[in-house]
Amino acid sequence: MKSTTYSNYLNNLSDIIKENSFGDLLKEGLFGIEKENVRVDTDGKLSMTPHNVLLGNKETNPYITTDFSDSQVEMITPPLPSVNEVHGFIETIHDIVTDSIGNELLWPQSTPPILPDENDIPIARYGKEKIKNEIYREDLAKKYGKKRQMISGLHFNYSITDRFVTQLQSKHFKDITKQQLTNDLYLRITRNFMRYRWLIVWLFGQSPTSHDTLVVKSLQTGEDKKLQCKKGVSTRTSPYGYRNRKDYYIDYTSLATFKQSIQDLVDTGELQFDKELYLPIRIKFDPEEEISHLEVRILDLDPYEKSGVSKVTLHFLHIFLMYCLLKEENSAFSEEEQLTSTKNQDLISCFGMDANTKLMADSPVTPDQWSAQIMNDIEDTLNPLNIISDNEYAQAMNIAYNISREHNKSRVFRLKKEIEEQGFINFHLNKALIYKNESTQKAYRFHGFEDMELSTQLLMKAAIRRGISIKILDRKENFISLEKADKKEYVMQATRTSLDPYNSVLMMENKVVTKKVLQEDGINVPGGNEYYNTNRAKSDYIFFKNRAIVVKPKSTNFGIGITILKENNSKELYERAVEMAFENEDSILIEEFIPGKEFRIFIINNKVVGILHRVPANVCGDGKSTIEQLVDIKNNDPIRGKGYKTPLEKIAKGEAEEIFLKTQGLDFNYIPEKDEVVYLRENSNVSTGGDSIDYTDDVHISYKQIAEQASKSLNVNITGLDMIIKDHTVAATADNHSIIEMNFNPAIHIHCYPFVGKNRYLNEKILDALGFEND
Amino acid sequence: MKSTTYSNYLNNLSDIIKENSFGDLLKEGLFGIEKENVRVDTDGKLSMTPHNVLLGNKETNPYITTDFSDSQVEMITPPLPSVNEVHGFIETIHDIVTDSIGNELLWPQSTPPILPDENDIPIARYGKEKIKNEIYREDLAKKYGKKRQMISGLHFNYSITDRFVTQLQSKHFKDITKQQLTNDLYLRITRNFMRYRWLIVWLFGQSPTSHDTLVVKSLQTGEDKKLQCKKGVSTRTSPYGYRNRKDYYIDYTSLATFKQSIQDLVDTGELQFDKELYLPIRIKFDPEEEISHLEVRILDLDPYEKSGVSKVTLHFLHIFLMYCLLKEENSAFSEEEQLTSTKNQDLISCFGMDANTKLMADSPVTPDQWSAQIMNDIEDTLNPLNIISDNEYAQAMNIAYNISREHNKSRVFRLKKEIEEQGFINFHLNKALIYKNESTQKAYRFHGFEDMELSTQLLMKAAIRRGISIKILDRKENFISLEKADKKEYVMQATRTSLDPYNSVLMMENKVVTKKVLQEDGINVPGGNEYYNTNRAKSDYIFFKNRAIVVKPKSTNFGIGITILKENNSKELYERAVEMAFENEDSILIEEFIPGKEFRIFIINNKVVGILHRVPANVCGDGKSTIEQLVDIKNNDPIRGKGYKTPLEKIAKGEAEEIFLKTQGLDFNYIPEKDEVVYLRENSNVSTGGDSIDYTDDVHISYKQIAEQASKSLNVNITGLDMIIKDHTVAATADNHSIIEMNFNPAIHIHCYPFVGKNRYLNEKILDALGFEND
Repeated sequence: MKSTTYSNYLNNLSDIIKENSFGDLLKEGLFGIEKENVRVDTDGKLSMTPHNVLLGNKETNPYITTDFSDSQVEMITPPLPSVNEVHGFIETIHDIVTDSIGNELLWPQSTPPILPDENDIPIARYGKEKIKNEIYREDLAKKYGKKRQMISGLHFNYSITDRFVTQLQSKHFKDITKQQLTNDLYLRITRNFMRYRWLIVWLFGQSPTSHDTLVVKSLQTGEDKKLQCKKGVSTRTSPYGYRNRKDYYIDYTSLATFKQSIQDLVDTGELQFDKELYLPIRIKFDPEEEISHLEVRILDLDPYEKSGVSKVTLHFLHIFLMYCLLKEENSAFSEEEQLTSTKNQDLISCFGMDANTKLMADSPVTPDQWSAQIMNDIEDTLNPLNIISDNEYAQAMNIAYNISREHNKSRVFRLKKEIEEQGFINFHLNKALIYKNESTQKAYRFHGFEDMELSTQLLMKAAIRRGISIKILDRKENFISLEKADKKEYVMQATRTSLDPYNSVLMMENKVVTKKVLQEDGINVPGGNEYYNTNRAKSDYIFFKNRAIVVKPKSTNFGIGITILKENNSKELYERAVEMAFENEDSILIEEFIPGKEFRIFIINNKVVGILHRVPANVCGDGKSTIEQLVDIKNNDPIRGKGYKTPLEKIAKGEAEEIFLKTQGLDFNYIPEKDEVVYLRENSNVSTGGDSIDYTDDVHISYKQIAEQASKSLNVNITGLDMIIKDHTVAATADNHSIIEMNFNPAIHIHCYPFVGKNRYLNEKILDALGFEND
Repeated sequence: MKSTTYSNYLNNLSDIIKENSFGDLLKEGLFGIEKENVRVDTDGKLSMTPHNVLLGNKETNPYITTDFSDSQVEMITPPLPSVNEVHGFIETIHDIVTDSIGNELLWPQSTPPILPDENDIPIARYGKEKIKNEIYREDLAKKYGKKRQMISGLHFNYSITDRFVTQLQSKHFKDITKQQLTNDLYLRITRNFMRYRWLIVWLFGQSPTSHDTLVVKSLQTGEDKKLQCKKGVSTRTSPYGYRNRKDYYIDYTSLATFKQSIQDLVDTGELQFDKELYLPIRIKFDPEEEISHLEVRILDLDPYEKSGVSKVTLHFLHIFLMYCLLKEENSAFSEEEQLTSTKNQDLISCFGMDANTKLMADSPVTPDQWSAQIMNDIEDTLNPLNIISDNEYAQAMNIAYNISREHNKSRVFRLKKEIEEQGFINFHLNKALIYKNESTQKAYRFHGFEDMELSTQLLMKAAIRRGISIKILDRKENFISLEKADKKEYVMQATRTSLDPYNSVLMMENKVVTKKVLQEDGINVPGGNEYYNTNRAKSDYIFFKNRAIVVKPKSTNFGIGITILKENNSKELYERAVEMAFENEDSILIEEFIPGKEFRIFIINNKVVGILHRVPANVCGDGKSTIEQLVDIKNNDPIRGKGYKTPLEKIAKGEAEEIFLKTQGLDFNYIPEKDEVVYLRENSNVSTGGDSIDYTDDVHISYKQIAEQASKSLNVNITGLDMIIKDHTVAATADNHSIIEMNFNPAIHIHCYPFVGKNRYLNEKILDALGFEND
C-alpha cells in the first residue's frame, strides 16, 4: 500500500466505517476531565489558606491536588468509558472537595475572584518534590505573572480504543503497523481540531468578563492591563489569557515531526520544558512512541454547572472530535493555516458576541455562516454511522445547532447579562453557594455511578478523599480494589473485605450455628428449637404454651411464613403457624419472642461504631397540614427517593397506607395535631418509607459490650448485629435483651445518612480498619 | 400426689405414654459405646508395644485411650442421638485405630489372646496423671490378677431425653420435681434390667471359651484356674470373669440409698473406690444429684462384627431398656431378689448353651420358656406405643425372638463350633485380618455419617485420631467445630475455614475478578473478554478469528452453553456459539482455548500439597475380557460407588457409554487387547466414572511455583487451582500453561483416595494448617 493511497484511504474513513458498521466501535472511547477551581472566602476573595489536609496528600492523591497555587484545587478523573461517567466522577470530586473546605467555596468561573496583590498570591508549597515543583512554579510566576496563573479551566481527555484501531487495521490497513495507524488517526483529529476549534470557543466560551483585580502584564508589550474584551465570549482563551508569548509553528505531520518542533523550542530557550507549550489540544504519547490520548484545553468553567461543564458540552465535544477524525483534509496544516486558525480563535474569544465578526476561511465568513456549514457537515458525516442516533448525543447535537443558529440566546449572553445585573462577584458567589448546598444535600451520591450500591458509592467517595486509587473490578457485583502506596485491598459491597475470616461469615449466614456459638459463650439469644417435621413441631406445643413465640422458616429474611404468637394459648393457632412456616421451607425455627425495640448495631474490629433503630413510615403533625400534605413535605427531603438510590425511601400514598390509616379511623385528609405522630405502616422497613434513627450515643454501654463480645465470639470484624432491647436506657440483665441475628454484609449508608442523628462515617471507619491511613 | 399413687402411676407408664402419644418421645435417647480390644501380633500373642503415638495423647484424647494395660485400646464414642450413629462411630474409631497400629491387629474376642506370664503383662503408664492412674491399676493387678484385666468388653450408655421427662412431668407429675422423676425413671430401668439381664447374656453372650493361657486366680478360693465353662455362653460375665469378690447388696430405692450402699462398701474397705463396683448396669449421675445416664456393661465383644457389636444387638438392647422402664414392678428389689438375679446371670453365663438349665423365677423355668414370656410381654408393651414399628427395631425384635426360639442356632453355637474347627487363636486372628482389610478398603468412610460429604468425613476421622473433639453444628451443611485444649475452630465442608479471608473467597467465586487480579500479577490466564450483548460479541469475531477459543456463560460450572471452537474459521459457527452462551446467561466470556492437560492443584498455606489429573471413564484390556466384563471388574473396587458416597463413581453401562463406544466402532462385547485402553466417555468428570490420577510428584516444579504465586496473589490459604499445562514434564514458559479457575471449596477426598497414586492426607494437612498439633 503506497503512502498516497493510504492518505486517500484515511480521507475516506467514514465510508470504511459505514461499510463495516464500525460506528459503535468509533463511538467507544475513554474520557477524562481535569479541572481547576480556586477557593474563595464568603466575600469572594481568593482564599489564602493552605490546601486542606482532609483532602489527602496533594503530592500523592491522584484525584485531588493543587495547581499553580494552593488556593487553586485541581480535580482529576481517571479515564472512564463514557461521557456520563466522567461527568459524574468530576461532579463527585467537586462534592468531596466542597465538603472538606469548611466555609470556603469553589469559585465557579474561569476568571478569578477578588485577587490580592500579585506578591501576596501564594505559590503551592511541596514536601518531597519541592525542588522540581516549586522552582518551576516560581519561574512561571515571573514569566506570566501570578494573577494570570489564577485563571482556571477544564481539560477534556479523549482516546479512541485499541479495539477500533485493531478492527480498522485488520480490515483495510494490513500493511501499516498499528502504532503508525494509531498515531495518524490522532494527528488527523488534532489538525482538524486546530482548524475548527474556534467553533468550540464560540459555542461554549463562558468567561466573557473578569474582575477588576485581574490586572496582568501583557505578554507582548509588558504593560499591566485589565483583562477585558467587551464583545468576547472567553477571556481565558483570548490572547490576554493564559497563553505562550508567541504562536509557535508546530509540524503536525507525524509524531516525530511534532516532537522535534517542540524540542527545537526548548533548545532555543523559547520554552523551559515541553509542557510549557500551551496548545489548545495537547498530544499525549507513551514511551513506545504511540499516542495514547488527546487533551482538549479550551473549555472554560461553565458557571451554570456545579461540575463546571454540562453533559451536553461533553457529548458535543465527543461528536466534534469524532468529526475531526473523519473530516477529509485538503491541505497540509501549514504555518499559514496554523496562524489563521489561531487568529480565528482569538477573534471569537474577543469578539464572539458580535455577529458581524468575520472569520478567515477560504473567504471571510461570519461565525453563524461557518458554523452552519460545519454543523451540516457533522450531521452528514455522522448520521449514516448511527453515531448521533442515541438520545443524549442527538440532544447535544441539537442544542449545539440551536446555539449556532441563535447565538445571542446562548448561555454566554445570559451570563454576561446576569453578571451585569448582579455584579461579577455576587453572581458567582451566589452560584457557588447554591452548588455547595446541592453537594451537601446529596452527599451520599457518587454521580455517574448511581447503579452501584449506596454503601459502595460512599466507600469510593471516602477513598477519593484520601487519595486511594479505585478500580471497579465487577460493577454489577460492587467489587472494587483500593490501592495506595504499597497497600492494596479488594472489597465487595463495601463490607465484604479481607478483615473477616471466611468461616465467620458462614457462621453468621447460618442462624442455627450463630445461635449455638453465641449461646455457648453465654450470650443471650432467643431460646427455641429447629424442626424438620410438622408433627414433631406440633407435639412441642407443651414447651411453648403460654409463652410468646415466633414461628418461622429457617432461612427466610423477608417475613414470609413468620407468625408471632404473643399469647400462644391456642393449640390450633400454634399448629396453624407451624404449618404455615413449613409451607415455606422444610425446616423451621420456633423461638421465644423477645419484646422490645430492635436495634441494628454496627461493629468494626470489635468496637460499636453505630446504632440505629428503624420506625415505620410516619408523619408528625403541625396542626395545619393534612396527612397527605405532611407526606409530601417529608418526601421532599433529598434523603428520600425511589428504588434504593437514596438513604431513605419516599412514603407511598397507596392502598396499604390507606388501609392502615383506616384501621386507626383516619384517612389522608386528616389533620394531625401539632406533634401528633401518625403511622402509615405497621412494618418498619426503610423500603416502605420507614425512618432510621441514630441511637449510637443513647444505648446503654452494657449492650454495646455484649454486642462487642458477640463479634468476638464469632471472630468477625465487620458485622451488623440485630439486638432486641427492652429498655435501652437501663443496664443489660439476664433477660432484657437478645441477639436475633448477625449480618455479614450490613449496609453502611443508613448509619451515614440517618433520618435523625449524626453521620457516623462508617465509610471512613472501614478504610481505617483496612489500614488506609488518613494522611 | 401421694407417694403410693405416684408409684402406681409409674407402674402405669405405658398407659400414660399411649394416651399422650409419647411413644416417639420415649424412643428418643442418647446412646454411647465404650469398647476395649487388646492388640495382638500376627501370631495372636498379646502385643507388648506401647500405645501408638499416632493415636494422640491417651490422657487427653476423648475417643481413643488405653484401659488397664497399654495393650488394651479403649474406644469411646460421644453421646449420639441414634443407635445407628453410635454403631457407625465406634466402627469408625475401630478403623482409625486399625490404621494406626501397623501390622498389629485388634483382637475381636472378649477373652484374651495368647497371654505372656502374669508378670510380663504391662500396666498402662501415664505422664501427668501418673499417681492416680498407675497406683490404681497396680492395686487392681494385685487384687484381680493382670490376666483377668485383659478380658475386654463393650459398654452401652443410654439416656432418656429431657424432652420426654418434661412432657411426662407437665402432663401427670406436676407435684414431683423433674429431678425426682428423672431419677425414679432411671432407677426403674436399672432394677428391671437387673431382674431380666440374664436374657441379654443368653441372647448375645459371645465368649463361650478362652485361650489356655487365661489362667486366673479364683476370686473366691484364690487358686489358679483356667477360665472355661463347657456349656457357657459368656466366660466374661461368669463368676470367673471380671467381677467383684462378692455379690454386694445395693439399695436401689433412690439415688440417695444407692449412693449410700456404695459408700458403705468403700468405708468398710470392701472397695477401694466407688468405681471398683463392677455392676452389670451402672448408674451415672451429675453433681446436682440427677441421674444422667445408665451404662450397660454385660455385652461381650461379638467376634462376628468388626465393631464388636451388631446394630441388631444395639436396637434390641434399646428396646429392652425401654421395656425395663415400662415393665411394672411388683416388689421392692430386695437382697434376695438381687442374689437370685445374679444367680440367673451366672447360670446363663456358665450353662446357657444347655437348654435344660433351670433359672430361678417364681418357679424354676428354662431360658426358652422365660424368654418367650418376656418377648411376648415386650411386644404387648411396646407395640401399642409404635416403638417397634419401624424397620430396624422390628427386625431386631424378630431376630431376638428367633434366637430365643431356636437358641441352638444362635451365633454363640456357631462361634463355639468354628473355634473348635479352626482353633481359638486361628479363628479370631482370621476375623481380625478380615476386619483389618475391610477397614483399609473403606478408610474414606465415617460410618453412620455417610450422609455428610466425604471431605468432612475424612476431616472428622483425622480429628478423632488426634483427639480433637468434634461437634456437628449443622449436619446438612457439614458445619462442624473442632476443639482441643484452648484451640477451637469452626469448619464448613472441610475447607471453608478461618484460614481464608472473606474477600479472597469472593474473588475466587468471581471468574472475571480472579482473572483480572492474576493477570495484573503477571500470571497466565486465558485471554479474552466479557460480553453483555450478542451483537458486541459477534462483531468481535475479528479478534478471535482463526484462534482456538472457548465461548461460555459467565458463571456456569457444568458445561452448559459452552462451545469450544478449535479452528474458529466460520463466522456462522462462532455466532451460533455466542447465541448459545447467551441463551444461558446474560453475560458471557470468550476466552482463548488452551490446549493441554487440566490439573487440579491443591494448595494449603501457599504450598502445593496435591496435584490430580482426571481422565474419562475407561477400561484397560487384559486380552481376554470384554469391555462389559472389564467395567464390572473395575466397578468392583470399593473405592467406586454410587451417589458420591465413595471417592470414585462406578462406570455406567448406559446409552451414553454405548453411543461413545459406537463412535469408535466398538460395543460392550469387544475384547480389548492386553493394555489397550478403551474410553467409555468423552468427559473426564469423576461423577461419570472418570479416574483420578495423582501427579503430585510428577508435575514440573515451575508450575507448582506459579500455582503458589497465584494463591498469594489472591491471598488465599486453601484453594483448588485448575491449571492447563501443555507438557507437565518441561518447565513453564510464557505460553505453555494457563490458570483457568481457583476453587474456594475444593474436595479433599479425591487427593486422599485417587484411582492411581498415594494418599496425600489433605485432611491431616488441613488440621496442621488450622494449628492443631499432631501430638
